[in-house]
Amino acid sequence: MSYKVDLSDIDRAGKASLTAQIADRIAADIELGVLGPGEKLPTTRVLAEHAGINHLTAARIYRRLADQGYVAGQVGRGTFVRSHPPVDAQEAGDDAEWQSSVLRPRRSTYAEQMLAESLGTGRDVIPFAAGFPAPSLLPAQELAALAEGRLRDGSGLEYLPVEGLPSLRVRLAELGRELGFASEAEEVVVTTGGRQAIDLVARAVLGPGDVAVVESPTFAGTLTSLQATGAQVLAMPVDDEGADVAVLERILARHEVKLVAVQPACQNPTGVDLSEARRARLVHLARERGFFVLEDGVYGSMALDGRDRPRLRAQAPAHVVYVDSLSKSIGGGLRLGWIAASGPVLPRLVRLKMDADLHSAALPQHLAAAWLEGDRHQRHLEAVIPEYRRRRDELLEALERHLGAEATWAVPTGGQHVWVTLRRAVDERALYAEALRAGVSFLPGGATQAEPTARTSLRLSFSYLDPSDFDEGVKRLARALASVRRRQPVGATAPLS
Amino acid sequence: MSYKVDLSDIDRAGKASLTAQIADRIAADIELGVLGPGEKLPTTRVLAEHAGINHLTAARIYRRLADQGYVAGQVGRGTFVRSHPPVDAQEAGDDAEWQSSVLRPRRSTYAEQMLAESLGTGRDVIPFAAGFPAPSLLPAQELAALAEGRLRDGSGLEYLPVEGLPSLRVRLAELGRELGFASEAEEVVVTTGGRQAIDLVARAVLGPGDVAVVESPTFAGTLTSLQATGAQVLAMPVDDEGADVAVLERILARHEVKLVAVQPACQNPTGVDLSEARRARLVHLARERGFFVLEDGVYGSMALDGRDRPRLRAQAPAHVVYVDSLSKSIGGGLRLGWIAASGPVLPRLVRLKMDADLHSAALPQHLAAAWLEGDRHQRHLEAVIPEYRRRRDELLEALERHLGAEATWAVPTGGQHVWVTLRRAVDERALYAEALRAGVSFLPGGATQAEPTARTSLRLSFSYLDPSDFDEGVKRLARALASVRRRQPVGATAPLS
Repeated sequence: MSYKVDLSDIDRAGKASLTAQIADRIAADIELGVLGPGEKLPTTRVLAEHAGINHLTAARIYRRLADQGYVAGQVGRGTFVRSHPPVDAQEAGDDAEWQSSVLRPRRSTYAEQMLAESLGTGRDVIPFAAGFPAPSLLPAQELAALAEGRLRDGSGLEYLPVEGLPSLRVRLAELGRELGFASEAEEVVVTTGGRQAIDLVARAVLGPGDVAVVESPTFAGTLTSLQATGAQVLAMPVDDEGADVAVLERILARHEVKLVAVQPACQNPTGVDLSEARRARLVHLARERGFFVLEDGVYGSMALDGRDRPRLRAQAPAHVVYVDSLSKSIGGGLRLGWIAASGPVLPRLVRLKMDADLHSAALPQHLAAAWLEGDRHQRHLEAVIPEYRRRRDELLEALERHLGAEATWAVPTGGQHVWVTLRRAVDERALYAEALRAGVSFLPGGATQAEPTARTSLRLSFSYLDPSDFDEGVKRLARALASVRRRQPVGATAPLS
Repeated sequence: MSYKVDLSDIDRAGKASLTAQIADRIAADIELGVLGPGEKLPTTRVLAEHAGINHLTAARIYRRLADQGYVAGQVGRGTFVRSHPPVDAQEAGDDAEWQSSVLRPRRSTYAEQMLAESLGTGRDVIPFAAGFPAPSLLPAQELAALAEGRLRDGSGLEYLPVEGLPSLRVRLAELGRELGFASEAEEVVVTTGGRQAIDLVARAVLGPGDVAVVESPTFAGTLTSLQATGAQVLAMPVDDEGADVAVLERILARHEVKLVAVQPACQNPTGVDLSEARRARLVHLARERGFFVLEDGVYGSMALDGRDRPRLRAQAPAHVVYVDSLSKSIGGGLRLGWIAASGPVLPRLVRLKMDADLHSAALPQHLAAAWLEGDRHQRHLEAVIPEYRRRRDELLEALERHLGAEATWAVPTGGQHVWVTLRRAVDERALYAEALRAGVSFLPGGATQAEPTARTSLRLSFSYLDPSDFDEGVKRLARALASVRRRQPVGATAPLS
């Protein structure tokens, strides 16, 4: 039943204008909710008929209500009640509550939340969730020495090209030729960490309605970036040979896939590599079906078994878009990442980068360019890798001691994490909460997966903690697990392995 | 007429499987374009009937075509021809042309393109388009001295909180209390330049279907960020008292506005300030109607007339979101910007920042925190402002000498640009091209405006060029203008003032 303003007690002969009287009644009905937010008001013609006024007066009534902030109206569209009635500006004060009704609802994903939590290190919490290198393993002195000369010439203060410092792009191309991710400096775009590189590639390729496939589990930030584009994100499970490309083939039979995201070397969180056969198959499919491969190589130089990991991009530079950073090797605070790509996607990436922040900070780029000269970077890796290997082994021993009966894990041949899977599933969030209470953190597996699985897994990082905390940390984890099991109803989960 | 596969010459008795024969014919029809990209194939039931085969064989035919990459099919949805037939992976080689058909069309706006061009400085081109400070006006030596101590402790290498270095947020809050843009460190989020700050605020508030209002002309990057959200972006013209808030009121009567973007002080490109009356009215409207004000203060400390410019946010901290940076004062290469906000929008901004790049580079934050101690920043501004004033005056004199008859301009009382409007309009893009040929650049007005206007305007920056180039630069501009006028048909544009 459409709205009819209440005309009782309208004083058509008195001093108060008819326009004001009728407008005030409509305003009152809006304040009372008789007319709801977004509701369409009767046309001026209908209002004029109903109220026995002329059309011009009806139009003035709506104009008055619009000027007061009750309605918004456009010729040809109609007049609508605004989402919120006007507020008394004096009374409103500095109350920020109004924002909640204006801001669009935004769903924060599990992956996003867990990544945010993993960045913090709570007091008295042994942070297995912290997936970054220990400060003691970063080359602070060497970098400081390098910086000292460079700053005086003011180079850190001047704007750079969007694609990045030219000399750094040259160095990265040299590294790219060596490792197999780039040929020419023109292919390289410097970004604010690998995080931004991944986000830019996702946004350059995907939009609502598109389909992307991602290895699962994976880096939580990759999940977030892919999902944020509005694309449908399907999972390719990871086993001991890396992402299961046969699953991708089945997906390709059902969907037009635009992008497949993988870490072919030292995968985060599992630590495995994509087998040679699967690498070849993935490249073949990318060429045959025409989709992008997002190759994330941030851990590619953190191999713990002494074997090189040639990058995938060399096999198909026009299909593989490569991202990488110095965060895992010399420090995340630099926010020094890059993309290597060719073809029409490259200028698109550059334009998105420009729109995001004009270019990444100059100082870290100058430092990185200096750092990458000669064999300094390689020598540094050779110095820290044995330490990471030692830490990995110590963590594995602690796991064996305290969780051997409860869980399984593969020995990661690369990277900075161990992927632990419980033999019997539990409520993952309950375990996470209990662990925090016990004084230990981990990255919950669900935060790293594109689709839920039946198993409960945890990512434990050995890169940040002091190894002397490993044993206590795993003990606390075991206690937390035991505590959660005690509370779990009998028969709620069947043994899975 | 729906598709019927050609069954002539099908050998039902021979060695080749029926499945393969029929699938090959459909594949051939796809390659030939008889079946187009995205076209829906007959159901398996219809195919089975038409071809005289059983349903299972029909399903196998489609399965085979899917595995080969010709179609994609899902139960319940149907089977569709893929956008592109499969490519011979060997032949495909490293050709990147396939990318163009997979990448979504992306319209690059005039604003975006002109901003990109203004960032470059071509050889032999006097770059009035370059809107950044001259290297000689940046405190390179002082910053280098500050940096040298800090790098040795490795602080530049470790991850920071998403919101930024705590000590920097404290300094920025101190500055905020002084200038009127913030009260507490908790309100501050450090960003990669003002550019990223603007982009994050736009994305935190706006989405497709929303309405934003922006002063026009404005910073080209603001236009790009607002438009990229998919919001409808309406213009509020700028006159000698700043953005015309009366136009905003008329817009408010017709639309639900979510965000209004202004630079109340030393506006880029016009150099004017928002009048006191309009500031008050804008704040009143923001409170009454419930919309965000994006206050861009990047030039707010570049006042050339010695008068302070108190920020707008102090008047309505729950409605005004403030962005700023050190780019104009100590150098854009640092990419050191920030947002000051409160209420539910603040955690949203932090989450978007985390998803974009985890946090801004640490080194510049450490430097900025040190820089902002004491009165160093204020002394630097006091040292450079007179030089900017001198440059402004020299440019105005050169304009008077060579373009006085052709154009008008206001004397900017702040900022680093002069906004020149031609008395008689010309084809702006023709003028831009001719100017480049003559060896001078400028930022075309159209790239700074949300809606087209009848007038032709140019932004000329006096911050980057050597003042000794001003006269020659303006001369070249005058020559280019004369050249374009000669080529213009008589009567094509009427004198406008």
